[in-house]
Amino acid sequence: MSEPMFQAVRWDPAGAVVLLDQRLLPFDRRFVTCRTPDEVAEAIRQMVVRGAPAIGIAAAYGMALALFPGSDASSEVLDRAARVLVQARPTAVNLAWAVRRMSQVAGAVRGATPEALREVLVREALAIHQEDIDRNRAIGIHGAALIPDEATVLTHCNAGALATGGYGTALGVIRAARESGKHLRVVACETRPYLQGARLTAWELLEDGFDVTLITDNAAGYLMSRGEITCVVVGADRIARNGDTANKVGTYVHAVVAARHGVPFYVAAPTSTLDPALPDGSGIPIEERRSDEVTQVLGTPIAPAGVRVRNPAFDVTPGSLITAIITEIGVHRPGAGGYDLVALTGIEPVSQD
Amino acid sequence: MSEPMFQAVRWDPAGAVVLLDQRLLPFDRRFVTCRTPDEVAEAIRQMVVRGAPAIGIAAAYGMALALFPGSDASSEVLDRAARVLVQARPTAVNLAWAVRRMSQVAGAVRGATPEALREVLVREALAIHQEDIDRNRAIGIHGAALIPDEATVLTHCNAGALATGGYGTALGVIRAARESGKHLRVVACETRPYLQGARLTAWELLEDGFDVTLITDNAAGYLMSRGEITCVVVGADRIARNGDTANKVGTYVHAVVAARHGVPFYVAAPTSTLDPALPDGSGIPIEERRSDEVTQVLGTPIAPAGVRVRNPAFDVTPGSLITAIITEIGVHRPGAGGYDLVALTGIEPVSQD
Repeated sequence: MSEPMFQAVRWDPAGAVVLLDQRLLPFDRRFVTCRTPDEVAEAIRQMVVRGAPAIGIAAAYGMALALFPGSDASSEVLDRAARVLVQARPTAVNLAWAVRRMSQVAGAVRGATPEALREVLVREALAIHQEDIDRNRAIGIHGAALIPDEATVLTHCNAGALATGGYGTALGVIRAARESGKHLRVVACETRPYLQGARLTAWELLEDGFDVTLITDNAAGYLMSRGEITCVVVGADRIARNGDTANKVGTYVHAVVAARHGVPFYVAAPTSTLDPALPDGSGIPIEERRSDEVTQVLGTPIAPAGVRVRNPAFDVTPGSLITAIITEIGVHRPGAGGYDLVALTGIEPVSQD
Repeated sequence: MSEPMFQAVRWDPAGAVVLLDQRLLPFDRRFVTCRTPDEVAEAIRQMVVRGAPAIGIAAAYGMALALFPGSDASSEVLDRAARVLVQARPTAVNLAWAVRRMSQVAGAVRGATPEALREVLVREALAIHQEDIDRNRAIGIHGAALIPDEATVLTHCNAGALATGGYGTALGVIRAARESGKHLRVVACETRPYLQGARLTAWELLEDGFDVTLITDNAAGYLMSRGEITCVVVGADRIARNGDTANKVGTYVHAVVAARHGVPFYVAAPTSTLDPALPDGSGIPIEERRSDEVTQVLGTPIAPAGVRVRNPAFDVTPGSLITAIITEIGVHRPGAGGYDLVALTGIEPVSQD
C-alpha cells in the first residue's frame, strides 16, 4: 500500500502545527510552524496549506492552539479563534465544519480545567485528522471500482495527500485503483493561476511512482475531444444538497467538455465537504484572490504592468454534470430529479448560525 | 482611427524582414532582422513572429529574400525556400497560402532577369501585406455590427495587430466596434502555455487605450456562467469547408462553454485562412510543441523535473459551435446543414500538390 513520504499537516505535541509549505513545492521542502490560531489562519490565507480537508484539519489544530500556552481557557478565547480561522478562506466548508466541531466539543466539557480542555481539544483535532485519512481510504475503495483498468484519468488542481490529512480524495481514488491491481495513467492539469497541478499533483504522483502527464488547462478539451481521457476525477471544496460542487476554478469547464464527450466526471470528497443546508450552488461564496497570482508566475511577471485582473479561485459545477459523487459512505448517483445528498447520505443540514 | 504604434512585420528594402520579437513582449521591444528564407523560417519556428496572417506575410517576404543578394534566381532557389518556409509550422494555412502565391507569381514571369524577378516578388509580398491590413479593416467593419454597445468581449490568444499585417482580425473587430462609437470592455484569456493573451493582447489593447481585464483561461467558464460575457471573438489558423476551425489550444473549450450559456461565439479571419480543400477539421494537422513551454513560464520552472508533457498548440472547434465566421467578404452564418464555406465565400479548394 503506497504511503506518501510527506505530511501536509502535522501536530507537534509541544503545541504547534507544522505545515509543509506548499507555496515552495516542488522545488523546496520547507516547513512553517504555527503556534497560535492567528498564525494558522494566516498560513491558510497565504496558502501554505491548501485543499479543503487539509485546511479543516489545520483549523482544528488551530483551535487547540488557542489553549496553548497556559491560556485562561475562557470561551471568549475559543470563540475568537473560531472567528479568525473561519474567516481565513470563504469557499471550503470543511474549515467551518472542523471549527464548529471543535467548538461543540469544548462546549460539552464546559467547566473543565484548562489542562483538561486542552487535552480534549488536542485529542479531537487528532481524531479529525485520523478520520480524514480513514475517510479518504474509504473514498478510495468506493471510487476505485469506477476506474477501468488501463484508464487515463484526468484530474484538476491537487486533491491528493497534500490537500488532505493524507492519501487524498481524487488522488485517493487513483491510488486505491492502482492498489487494486489496475494500470493507470494520470493526466494532471497544471491549474492556473496557482499551479497546484503542475507543482503539487505532478510532484506527489511522481514521488509515488505514477505515470503522470502534465498539460495546460487549455489542452484538456483537446485530449477529451480525441478520446484520450477515460474519466475525470476531482476533489471539492463545498457541495450543495443538489450536487452543485465548488472546486478549483476550471473544474466547471472540464465538466462541461467531459459531458459533451461522454467522459464520466467524478467528484471525490469526504462528507465534511457537504453543505446540505445550501439547496444549490448559487449560495456558495466564491473567493476572488489577489491579481498578482495572475500577473506573476512564481514571481516572474507575465503581463503588462497595471492591467486589470479578475481572479476567482473557484467555480461551481452543476450536479447535473457530475456522473457520481464519491464519499466515504459510498458512490452516490443522481436520481431522476438529480442529487439529493440528504437522502443519499443521511447527513442533515446544520444551521449556519 | 486607432493605429497601433508597432508593426509585427516590416520589409526593409535593402533586403531584410524586420520582426518585432514577440517572445520578449511586453517587457522588451526588440527586433529580429532576417536576411534569408532560412532565417525567416527559424523566426517562425521560434515564434519571434506568430499569428496565422503575420506568419504568412513573413513567409512571403522570406520568398523574396531567396533572391537577395544576387542569387541565381533559378527556380530551385525558390522551390527550396518554399519548402523550408512551409515546414516551419504545420497548422496555419496562411503560411502555405502565401508561399504558393509567391511561387505562382514567380512562375508567371519565368525567364525574367534576376533583378526583375526580385522586384516582382518584393512587390507581391508588399501587396500580400497591404491586402492583409485591408482585409482586416473589412473584417472589422463586418464584425463590428455584431458587437452590441456596452459589450464585454472575451478573446483568446492574440488575433491582433501583432498577429497580422496590422489592425488584427478578432481585435480588428473590437477596434472597429469602438471606432463605430460603441463602449466595450475586453476580457483577455492569458492563453497558456505561451501566454499570448497576457503578454500580447493585454499589452496591445492597453497601448491602444482599451478597458481590458486579464483572466486565467480557467476563469472564462466562471465568467460565462455568471452572464458576464456578451460574446466571444477569436481568430483562426485554419478553417475547413464545414467551418471547423483550428485555433490556439483552449479555443474549443471556450466555444463549448459559450454554447452552453448561449454566448455568441465568432471567428474572425481573412479568407486566406480558409482551407476548403478540407471537408472538415479532422484533416488539420495539430502541432505538438516542446515540453518546456509547459514546464517553464518565461524561463521559470513550474513543475518537477522530468515530468512527461503533452503540448498541443491548437485545437479544433467544430463549425456547429460557431455562431458566425467573419471574413473580409462578410459575415457567414451556417445554413440548415451547417457551414459550406465554398458556397458562402465563392472560394474554391486549391489542390494541395
